Amino acid sequence: MGKKRIGILTSGGDCPGLNAAIRSLGKTAILRYDFEVVGFLSGFAGLISGEYIILDEAKLSGILTLGGTILGTSREKPFKNYQNDSEKVESKPEAIQRTYETLGLECLICIGGNGTQKTAHKLAKMGLKVIGLPKTIDNDIWGTDITFGFDSAVSIATEAIDRLHTTANSHRRIMVVEVMGHHAGWLALYSGMASGGDVILIPEIPYTIETIAAYLEDRYRKQKPYSIVVVAEGIPIPEPLREKYYSPAHYIADSVQKLTGLESRETILGYVQRGGTPTAYDRVLATRLGSYAVELIMKRKWNRMVCVRNGEIDSVKLEEVSGKLKLVEPDHPMIEEARSLGTCFGNEGR
Amino acid sequence: MGKKRIGILTSGGDCPGLNAAIRSLGKTAILRYDFEVVGFLSGFAGLISGEYIILDEAKLSGILTLGGTILGTSREKPFKNYQNDSEKVESKPEAIQRTYETLGLECLICIGGNGTQKTAHKLAKMGLKVIGLPKTIDNDIWGTDITFGFDSAVSIATEAIDRLHTTANSHRRIMVVEVMGHHAGWLALYSGMASGGDVILIPEIPYTIETIAAYLEDRYRKQKPYSIVVVAEGIPIPEPLREKYYSPAHYIADSVQKLTGLESRETILGYVQRGGTPTAYDRVLATRLGSYAVELIMKRKWNRMVCVRNGEIDSVKLEEVSGKLKLVEPDHPMIEEARSLGTCFGNEGR
Amino acid sequence: MGKKRIGILTSGGDCPGLNAAIRSLGKTAILRYDFEVVGFLSGFAGLISGEYIILDEAKLSGILTLGGTILGTSREKPFKNYQNDSEKVESKPEAIQRTYETLGLECLICIGGNGTQKTAHKLAKMGLKVIGLPKTIDNDIWGTDITFGFDSAVSIATEAIDRLHTTANSHRRIMVVEVMGHHAGWLALYSGMASGGDVILIPEIPYTIETIAAYLEDRYRKQKPYSIVVVAEGIPIPEPLREKYYSPAHYIADSVQKLTGLESRETILGYVQRGGTPTAYDRVLATRLGSYAVELIMKRKWNRMVCVRNGEIDSVKLEEVSGKLKLVEPDHPMIEEARSLGTCFGNEGR
Amino acid sequence: MGKKRIGILTSGGDCPGLNAAIRSLGKTAILRYDFEVVGFLSGFAGLISGEYIILDEAKLSGILTLGGTILGTSREKPFKNYQNDSEKVESKPEAIQRTYETLGLECLICIGGNGTQKTAHKLAKMGLKVIGLPKTIDNDIWGTDITFGFDSAVSIATEAIDRLHTTANSHRRIMVVEVMGHHAGWLALYSGMASGGDVILIPEIPYTIETIAAYLEDRYRKQKPYSIVVVAEGIPIPEPLREKYYSPAHYIADSVQKLTGLESRETILGYVQRGGTPTAYDRVLATRLGSYAVELIMKRKWNRMVCVRNGEIDSVKLEEVSGKLKLVEPDHPMIEEARSLGTCFGNEGR
Repeated sequence: MGKKRIGILTSGGDCPGLNAAIRSLGKTAILRYDFEVVGFLSGFAGLISGEYIILDEAKLSGILTLGGTILGTSREKPFKNYQNDSEKVESKPEAIQRTYETLGLECLICIGGNGTQKTAHKLAKMGLKVIGLPKTIDNDIWGTDITFGFDSAVSIATEAIDRLHTTANSHRRIMVVEVMGHHAGWLALYSGMASGGDVILIPEIPYTIETIAAYLEDRYRKQKPYSIVVVAEGIPIPEPLREKYYSPAHYIADSVQKLTGLESRETILGYVQRGGTPTAYDRVLATRLGSYAVELIMKRKWNRMVCVRNGEIDSVKLEEVSGKLKLVEPDHPMIEEARSLGTCFGNEGR
Repeated sequence: MGKKRIGILTSGGDCPGLNAAIRSLGKTAILRYDFEVVGFLSGFAGLISGEYIILDEAKLSGILTLGGTILGTSREKPFKNYQNDSEKVESKPEAIQRTYETLGLECLICIGGNGTQKTAHKLAKMGLKVIGLPKTIDNDIWGTDITFGFDSAVSIATEAIDRLHTTANSHRRIMVVEVMGHHAGWLALYSGMASGGDVILIPEIPYTIETIAAYLEDRYRKQKPYSIVVVAEGIPIPEPLREKYYSPAHYIADSVQKLTGLESRETILGYVQRGGTPTAYDRVLATRLGSYAVELIMKRKWNRMVCVRNGEIDSVKLEEVSGKLKLVEPDHPMIEEARSLGTCFGNEGR
Repeated sequence: MGKKRIGILTSGGDCPGLNAAIRSLGKTAILRYDFEVVGFLSGFAGLISGEYIILDEAKLSGILTLGGTILGTSREKPFKNYQNDSEKVESKPEAIQRTYETLGLECLICIGGNGTQKTAHKLAKMGLKVIGLPKTIDNDIWGTDITFGFDSAVSIATEAIDRLHTTANSHRRIMVVEVMGHHAGWLALYSGMASGGDVILIPEIPYTIETIAAYLEDRYRKQKPYSIVVVAEGIPIPEPLREKYYSPAHYIADSVQKLTGLESRETILGYVQRGGTPTAYDRVLATRLGSYAVELIMKRKWNRMVCVRNGEIDSVKLEEVSGKLKLVEPDHPMIEEARSLGTCFGNEGR
Repeated sequence: MGKKRIGILTSGGDCPGLNAAIRSLGKTAILRYDFEVVGFLSGFAGLISGEYIILDEAKLSGILTLGGTILGTSREKPFKNYQNDSEKVESKPEAIQRTYETLGLECLICIGGNGTQKTAHKLAKMGLKVIGLPKTIDNDIWGTDITFGFDSAVSIATEAIDRLHTTANSHRRIMVVEVMGHHAGWLALYSGMASGGDVILIPEIPYTIETIAAYLEDRYRKQKPYSIVVVAEGIPIPEPLREKYYSPAHYIADSVQKLTGLESRETILGYVQRGGTPTAYDRVLATRLGSYAVELIMKRKWNRMVCVRNGEIDSVKLEEVSGKLKLVEPDHPMIEEARSLGTCFGNEGR
């Protein structure tokens, strides 16, 4: 009789640490528990089409430091626009079920963000044995204090903002830098604090351009020769101006310059925030979460997502996580701490 | 009447994040609570001699990213060899008391490692109002889950070990790399896991050279072309050989080569592990701890050390911390996780 | 009698290595030849207004690794729109002459790019003793093989493109990355070769979007899962579409996706390319050029620009440099070398 | 009839850029000229034993950024202790000849340092068609201004010394840092200048410990709080003390502390200087040299080493290169430039 078999996939936007997690999961499963490990290609797309590779020890070697995912990823959402239409050839969930059964999987491990965990939960409800493994550069996954990818993204953004400081200082400019974060401002908050941002704008705290302009003028009057403004890509541009500006940073820089007369420039960090080798922190975290996921399988604790809680590796039910988003609470202590240091958040509390 | 005044000092080995903590502490105290901030030079030496500078906003600007400490540091231990000898001119603790009173300090904030917290506790028992702020590249401070300096040191060590991988692979060698950690193996454990170390040796787990040699020979037989051995500087060299080897890495590399015939080389990372700009993680942590220390003063919660507990910023009584050391427990989950990935710890559990 | 005095200024866009050059210039002048060194603030603006600081040894200490310029810079062009109008109070060139004479300068050293060298030449023609010191991230200064700033910019761009590789690979995407270079494609060419760019577009080589699309489709058909396109910011967008796209990278990514159906994304590196600590290469080069400039003064060789020629530090007459631009020749060997490796330049030679 | 075939090997110590050169060589040969490319394993050892792999396009993909060499390397010197003993089974040179002929090689490309070029020349004299491609972290290869590996090593060393600055400053210490360079001081000279070293000791300039101690005491008296001493591993330790010290840095640090009473510590950078991803500069250089080597084959210009001369890629006869070493001339302009900035070289010229 053959070995027991588990499946893995990576889904959603890529982030540093995915390969570290795959390696840890795979090596633990193979070396410690003698599983066979199937890696589906391009996220749920590979699970639907049945495209996979066998992850043996050789394939898992040398990937710890590698950015991205050796399995590929996609934004395929198998339950989207899903109509249970019995006359249809085969729905995507049915295809998944078939792949799962054909391969005789003991368990399916879904590595991904909020959307992935939601899909994982739906698969669990269909009867599959599923473990979720969270990854994110946004830190917005509900149910875990943190997960891998975020520290790397904060590091990259911080290093970039460090560079902008010297340029801003030499030219006595306002530099507006846009970091990732459609819904959650964690990346802007952490990289803004780490790099000494003077203004930090996040989706969770409404801002007015006038408050920011007044604050920056005040700094100028106090002989501070330059300012750094860190904005999350998800902050709103006022309705009538959305056509005019290609991004929030563009809007802020242009408006501040008009309101204050101070030279302002924008930089959008973009995809560099997701790529490259993970930080040591993320490698350790990804390794530990991957290892823990296999222990959950051995304990037959299905339909859970591994997580970090109170500084410890733990797990949480997928149904608790599914469909939720972890945002920055406006009374998060970091907001107040940053304000104590003089940071402006664009509202009246500054 | 003048402003209320607080004092700060940095003591013990320097580490990345000290300036971030000084900046946060100082700015919060000055901007939010209108304190005057006195910075003593060269740790407790400056407190004894009364050498200090006034830290105004200008001096606190632009230091967030800077390694080391703008205040200087020393290993001065004012209570060492201290005899209460009434006929002596003035003892060091008396000199400290006098500086503290002459300056009319509201509170003294001592930033440092285990030794510093112990001294802080003794000053508290003398009647001074003291707050401890932990810093370490060793992660061995009792009472806090983590503090700044460690993540930077792990990052530097990991990046160095990444470099050694390519050399080891090209030459099909065993590379033995020695990281800091006299008593605690945290740095070796984290950087070893982050860099995929094949053997990790820490002071808390006894090893035999024979176990290591057998493990490395086994890898060689399995066609693994090279191996990385990460050792903490505090692991013991067997008694009769201590004269012969200038460091544990030297001993391990030489002995492994003799026992296995496999080419082995050592590298000792040394002081580079303490220097340079802090990681984003450490900057955020140092900033948050610094800010929290000022809040403790405002709440008049003296004689405590700020700390991280269960992922939250918190504080703990100095008397609970003083004189203790936080070591790696041999049943720490990371040990088992690393073993699952095939890592050897040099003992029979491998 | 007082010391002999020389003046320094930095003008134009900032770049890594300016402070290394200021330090070397200043220390050599002070320590070796006992000059007094005057540093004008904000480029030619400080020379016009007479705003300066005395650069003593202390001010020159610890700045070697610092990005930007401690003197500040501006894009002030004192000869622009200059009308010799005798009834005017004082023209900018007259103000410069007055500052120069009032301070009794032995020589003025102008650190900057093409525009700065042009202004320096005009000042020389007015009778000032001037030395030019080239700096650039664009490598487009005529008369020197290379100067500091370029290697740092290439390094930053290359590291960023390295990160994009892993993302492009995981998502099987085309990533279009825009680097600096309005007129000259050096930065795109070097960072493109250093990072293995599949397509490199520079202002000096006309391209067609159809050639690029065909090339990228061909790669796709050959099972290359992703492609990297490096474009200089100065490549043209066809006339009717200039309104629609906010940058060349935006145009290329959008058009390629439409023409090929392959997912394409753009990233604009922006100001991060100018900032931060200089590479070791740039530090050495800036140090050497700064030192050489002082030797030119001692040899009374005025109105020259220090340069690198045939791998040696040398100098060239300002009049030979002034008003020229060093572009990539379409038959530069690197173009052909890159083509041999399969790189496409967007024209029929591919 | 089959394709024409060329062979490649990498020999001697590994260095960053080897894979970039292999990739460029291989891709140019395959894509442009339709060669088959044979890669020998572990340097000349693979050429002797006939162990090789076929380097196709897939094997050459994704290696540009990788440190080390995918072919492996060794210090095998096939002509060492070589006795033309006709009764012997087969000498190493004979085995090489046989491999070369059996595979029907058009040409053999030897990538390596001085020793490798010497061996390449001997093979040429035996009648093989050989091209040398220089690599080095020491910059000591005669016949080329520079080659890849050196810039990466300088960068790594400089970054490490940057870190030591902050530690030295905080503790007011003398930090002695040892970089590679057995015979040539290039790495110490460049990294010392790039990092602002106060003392630079290289094998080419004799030093006395008394000169260094006097210089460091003088700095201390002038209120410079710390000093950085950069030493090449090849500087001599005086005869009677060689047993006592495990390295020159150890000797210098210990002796300076004894002579001056100033706290001194040593750090030996070791193997990290050879590893990891090459700098952008080295990637471009390795790529260009690799490409040029193939052009030499097409032009049938055998028995030459590709090189950089006067800033251009060129080639030189192997016989001119063989057996020579490029050392730092004591009157090299960088020595005088560094002295102007106050650097001490340990002799009377300081």
